[in-house]
Amino acid sequence: MSKGSVVLAYSGGLDTSCILLWLKEQGYEVIAYLANIGQDEDFDAARKKAEKLGAEKVFIEDLRSEFVQEFIWPALQANAVYEDRYLLGTSIARPCIARRQVQIARREGAQYVSHGATGKGNDQIRFELTCYALYPQVQAPWSMDANLMHISYESGILENPKNHAPPDLYQMTKNPEDSPNEPDVLEIHFAKGVPVKVRHVKEGTCKETPLEIFCYLNEIGGKHGVGRIDIVENRFIGMKSRGIYETPGGTILLHAHLDIETFTMDREVRKIKQSLGIKFSEFIYNGFWYSPECDFVRHCIDKSQESVEGCVQLSVFKGQVYILGRESPKSLYNEELVSMDVQGDYDPCDASGFIRINAVRLREHNRLQGAAQKKL
Amino acid sequence: MSKGSVVLAYSGGLDTSCILLWLKEQGYEVIAYLANIGQDEDFDAARKKAEKLGAEKVFIEDLRSEFVQEFIWPALQANAVYEDRYLLGTSIARPCIARRQVQIARREGAQYVSHGATGKGNDQIRFELTCYALYPQVQAPWSMDANLMHISYESGILENPKNHAPPDLYQMTKNPEDSPNEPDVLEIHFAKGVPVKVRHVKEGTCKETPLEIFCYLNEIGGKHGVGRIDIVENRFIGMKSRGIYETPGGTILLHAHLDIETFTMDREVRKIKQSLGIKFSEFIYNGFWYSPECDFVRHCIDKSQESVEGCVQLSVFKGQVYILGRESPKSLYNEELVSMDVQGDYDPCDASGFIRINAVRLREHNRLQGAAQKKL
Amino acid sequence: MSKGSVVLAYSGGLDTSCILLWLKEQGYEVIAYLANIGQDEDFDAARKKAEKLGAEKVFIEDLRSEFVQEFIWPALQANAVYEDRYLLGTSIARPCIARRQVQIARREGAQYVSHGATGKGNDQIRFELTCYALYPQVQAPWSMDANLMHISYESGILENPKNHAPPDLYQMTKNPEDSPNEPDVLEIHFAKGVPVKVRHVKEGTCKETPLEIFCYLNEIGGKHGVGRIDIVENRFIGMKSRGIYETPGGTILLHAHLDIETFTMDREVRKIKQSLGIKFSEFIYNGFWYSPECDFVRHCIDKSQESVEGCVQLSVFKGQVYILGRESPKSLYNEELVSMDVQGDYDPCDASGFIRINAVRLREHNRLQGAAQKKL
Amino acid sequence: MSKGSVVLAYSGGLDTSCILLWLKEQGYEVIAYLANIGQDEDFDAARKKAEKLGAEKVFIEDLRSEFVQEFIWPALQANAVYEDRYLLGTSIARPCIARRQVQIARREGAQYVSHGATGKGNDQIRFELTCYALYPQVQAPWSMDANLMHISYESGILENPKNHAPPDLYQMTKNPEDSPNEPDVLEIHFAKGVPVKVRHVKEGTCKETPLEIFCYLNEIGGKHGVGRIDIVENRFIGMKSRGIYETPGGTILLHAHLDIETFTMDREVRKIKQSLGIKFSEFIYNGFWYSPECDFVRHCIDKSQESVEGCVQLSVFKGQVYILGRESPKSLYNEELVSMDVQGDYDPCDASGFIRINAVRLREHNRLQGAAQKKL
Repeated sequence: MSKGSVVLAYSGGLDTSCILLWLKEQGYEVIAYLANIGQDEDFDAARKKAEKLGAEKVFIEDLRSEFVQEFIWPALQANAVYEDRYLLGTSIARPCIARRQVQIARREGAQYVSHGATGKGNDQIRFELTCYALYPQVQAPWSMDANLMHISYESGILENPKNHAPPDLYQMTKNPEDSPNEPDVLEIHFAKGVPVKVRHVKEGTCKETPLEIFCYLNEIGGKHGVGRIDIVENRFIGMKSRGIYETPGGTILLHAHLDIETFTMDREVRKIKQSLGIKFSEFIYNGFWYSPECDFVRHCIDKSQESVEGCVQLSVFKGQVYILGRESPKSLYNEELVSMDVQGDYDPCDASGFIRINAVRLREHNRLQGAAQKKL
Repeated sequence: MSKGSVVLAYSGGLDTSCILLWLKEQGYEVIAYLANIGQDEDFDAARKKAEKLGAEKVFIEDLRSEFVQEFIWPALQANAVYEDRYLLGTSIARPCIARRQVQIARREGAQYVSHGATGKGNDQIRFELTCYALYPQVQAPWSMDANLMHISYESGILENPKNHAPPDLYQMTKNPEDSPNEPDVLEIHFAKGVPVKVRHVKEGTCKETPLEIFCYLNEIGGKHGVGRIDIVENRFIGMKSRGIYETPGGTILLHAHLDIETFTMDREVRKIKQSLGIKFSEFIYNGFWYSPECDFVRHCIDKSQESVEGCVQLSVFKGQVYILGRESPKSLYNEELVSMDVQGDYDPCDASGFIRINAVRLREHNRLQGAAQKKL
Repeated sequence: MSKGSVVLAYSGGLDTSCILLWLKEQGYEVIAYLANIGQDEDFDAARKKAEKLGAEKVFIEDLRSEFVQEFIWPALQANAVYEDRYLLGTSIARPCIARRQVQIARREGAQYVSHGATGKGNDQIRFELTCYALYPQVQAPWSMDANLMHISYESGILENPKNHAPPDLYQMTKNPEDSPNEPDVLEIHFAKGVPVKVRHVKEGTCKETPLEIFCYLNEIGGKHGVGRIDIVENRFIGMKSRGIYETPGGTILLHAHLDIETFTMDREVRKIKQSLGIKFSEFIYNGFWYSPECDFVRHCIDKSQESVEGCVQLSVFKGQVYILGRESPKSLYNEELVSMDVQGDYDPCDASGFIRINAVRLREHNRLQGAAQKKL
Repeated sequence: MSKGSVVLAYSGGLDTSCILLWLKEQGYEVIAYLANIGQDEDFDAARKKAEKLGAEKVFIEDLRSEFVQEFIWPALQANAVYEDRYLLGTSIARPCIARRQVQIARREGAQYVSHGATGKGNDQIRFELTCYALYPQVQAPWSMDANLMHISYESGILENPKNHAPPDLYQMTKNPEDSPNEPDVLEIHFAKGVPVKVRHVKEGTCKETPLEIFCYLNEIGGKHGVGRIDIVENRFIGMKSRGIYETPGGTILLHAHLDIETFTMDREVRKIKQSLGIKFSEFIYNGFWYSPECDFVRHCIDKSQESVEGCVQLSVFKGQVYILGRESPKSLYNEELVSMDVQGDYDPCDASGFIRINAVRLREHNRLQGAAQKKL
């Protein structure tokens, strides 16, 4: 007699295959679900494997476009970076994958969802918080055994934070030492803070849909070895872990977006938006994509992007992204005002008054503290 | 009859030479002051030129060590970066230069100080705020004419933010296209958040004083083209300007410091310290190095650095800095706790409880808003 | 020959009467403008006085409704309080008054606007920043003489921060010692974070338009001596000043709004909104009502108020506002979930897991620092 | 055979008496521990009761002085208030009580600690996090039954947030309707941000030790009905709860401290310190008194209090605290500078320059957005 249905986020790998079998043994009916979010995978082979292991149904879902538009783009608008370095590639994939899984569970009447994330990581949390937020009645019979299977040579070595990453670890990016000796120069066009066109200046190649843009930037960035980082990060559950990431397309876009944003956004709005972006990154990292605070901050960041429009020229070369120039119809840059050669209606006496008023507080402080001398 | 004495921050260049002459014509006695903060300059020639133009006295002051220790190191501890990109090289030099200028003015009994910074920039503000903070009675007869002289071909071209920087602009860093095809691997040792030793792993070269460390990292970074940026930034006076900077040594240190800091600092302390660092950067950029708020934030940041200790290995190559590994006696990283292969005393059931409690709020929100469905 | 037209913000008092005369003597045509924002004033007498002093035209404008709806309500939504205490009554009146003045100047083709605010205060800044923001071409021939006229016995005494305010200073609020010995109990209904109805529970009095609501709360608050504060505050220009304020209606609304907001708003959204409200208060205080940052923050705060709906019962008595109870159709309060008498689906084991996971970081910290003992 | 020793935080009430019995039945040896933190309690009777129920040992500990000095004073320095209203009276008592309990457990070689806090509240978390932080090896056999016993008539009524609190609920404060018709005027002297003397101006009564000061302010505040609040708050575990608090002495001190702090602290330091105080309040509320982040923030706040020194005069009357005046040797208030009657060396032209420079950004924004018209 069946204990009910489980939608299992199935990867085709050893871990989730074991979970599939284990769930069957426990008396569950298993619906295998494979999310295509752009990973390199033989989906047909995975389907066959799942069926062979006894899955009642197998769903292979192409989430690539919605992943780019609904998850990567908002993170980009926020310049979302966790702890100054990590671009949150995994963190934003989890809610995207779990959302579809919950949709399938609702549609198929499954009471359970299951995943292969291990118990010491962030991904269990991201996965389960999304499920609870979107499908409050659901349960997650996640198996402790999963992490006993998660043994990999690389992981073992990298757990010592002093050890260097083996050179053949990286799969999306070329080693900069072996990358081309000629840069590629791109033009990235933005509207409302998201890329709407990428053009290769020399070759003339143009990409205009979100998925194509992102894949193309991954290709160019990967070719030049862009976006590799080796960091120690703080997990939500309170331990430090070492992570190695490669984010070629995301890194190019982060540079370009930072540039066009500062070019078009008011200084004080930028400051507030920066602090919202830091909060947003933390929410995402901790698994709160579907939460009132994330909704609220996303709304505010969206608002800030209304005038983030224009074109950035950049060069990609040997692991680096160099901004070359930018232009925008919505720029707040005023060439005449800033020019050293043009006086314009900027009166230098105003600057003196501005400085003296700013100094009122400093002078008072030093007069009363008698601290000026001490400092010299 | 003399109008009094002026200590003029003299560079030897056209601008400040004109100011020197103009001040003489106005009836001031001029004391020329040249600060050596590591720029490439023929100080003897400048001294002769100042004397020839009529300076009463000429002081050439070597500020390099105090610049590194008292200004660069605190900025590094703060990971000080303005608007996510600018490492504040000029902003922290101004208070260092102005402090000594004020000391000279006090010692020599000069009532005035003067500088060659132009009226549309940040440097006038940084300079004058420092003087007012440290020497409240001083005056600054800054001449508007200075910026009429400040005409340079480069500046003209760069004022259009779309124009690319000419390739021969950079002076400290090699073009990455022409830089070596072999990386240099360094070990940087930190104590209390500042570097105390740099070692070239292959060559064995060691540097242990602040000035030597910083110069050596400039050399290595420069050789590999590290630290070039082309940005638009928001000036304190409310206009956007385009700036091109190269900060080879500072960029290497920022990467290394970020790494060792995250490795050794508690997650929540890090968050607070990050927001203090953002504020600190803004204060510095705006010229408030000598201010109660800067003093306060520096004190707090100092406190946060007590355990920032250890060694980072990194590779410098083609404009990039790659972190390779790190170790520290004060690390909060616990290899056994985080290991996927060791259960330890971490109970996976706790994570489930943790997640379910975190979900209480999300479930309530969705139950009451009836929003769950809508989102799917 | 006329030097042009000036729209003068005329109060009918000595200061601005002198400015009117002085402007005439300087050769300007003066348009007198009196804003009715609810102050106690004989507007007819003021009109006659202005005409007698030589004003070309006199405009008396009733701004009370727009002041309540467009300025007080947004400040209320933000819980706007400067430096933890000042409810910003003057700060939000300035942009309201100046906006209409600019409208008149545009309509009448006047090139100048003028006001009577003194040179050491915040109001000059608030006034002039608004004018520059809304009418960039305008000029403000503000007269230094104004503050020489601004001599008042009270002001003299209060400038010593140790002196107590004289008991007859207050005009809107009764001395609590003389106020009624019976409280008034009110019900305030909110929608989208602003009051839409006030009901006196015993008397049944009802007010439903913004202006009526605010005036009625001023009346009730004034009768019970609510909203008096004596503070030292930090002006934008960098000096500390002593201010005495009475804000009866605003104080009642702040208490009520805080209550209904916490009742209906998610905890994490509240935190972010709180920090935005602090920034908003500072912007307003400093005169930046019309600025990109204020627009942005207002938009975000508006968004946060969507579910701030419901009714608060409170009692007003002897200078105090006591919250008695609240209800809301949009509340996130779940009586069953929080009840000590009902287990519900809240599993206490989850709390233990939650705590143990939160303690992972603390235990690591103490283990590695060996600090636990030291603290005991 | 004993399962080991438990140190039970025993209150003498029904809940913890039941837990004592239950622990005995389970085979534990129970050490009863009563903390005197100023509550109204017959400690002798409680000791006898515990002995009668079978406690091996009973410890009654007077923690009042350390509670005031080590917990209340730091919270006061921070102006610690949770969600704008709650003064955290319970939150700061928990770590104080738990710290001694852990000390006893260590000394007596007990492996367990136990408390009577219920599973839906914050106090379990505060208690257990403190124990884990200070005594990582300890365990807490907290009994789920406790909250089934926690049934009280009041609690039942108050769980409906609309119901008014019954008038006889309050124990520390008089109903303001029945309080004296004459105010008491006090002088509170501060040094380094904490009160060092309280003087009753008329009666001359003086209190100079922390415990006496706080008890005296509780007495005066209680007599006048100061510090009652009825709020809905957000618990750490994600649910909203309704709380009614009375904090007479703490409320008086908060008003006085806010005043002397703003009087003596630089504006920009105050802003940073305010945001640190908000974080500190949240940490305390959530149970993280003993944590790296709390240590760090306390250190920073301490630093900010160095010049918070001086005397505040205030009047306490009918539930309210009115600041009357203040003085300080460390004040940054400059009577001459701020005076409307004295020009001093403040040049009004500087203000115009200050304003025009601040307007550069606003003018640019409006010029480019063409938004000025739209707003009018």
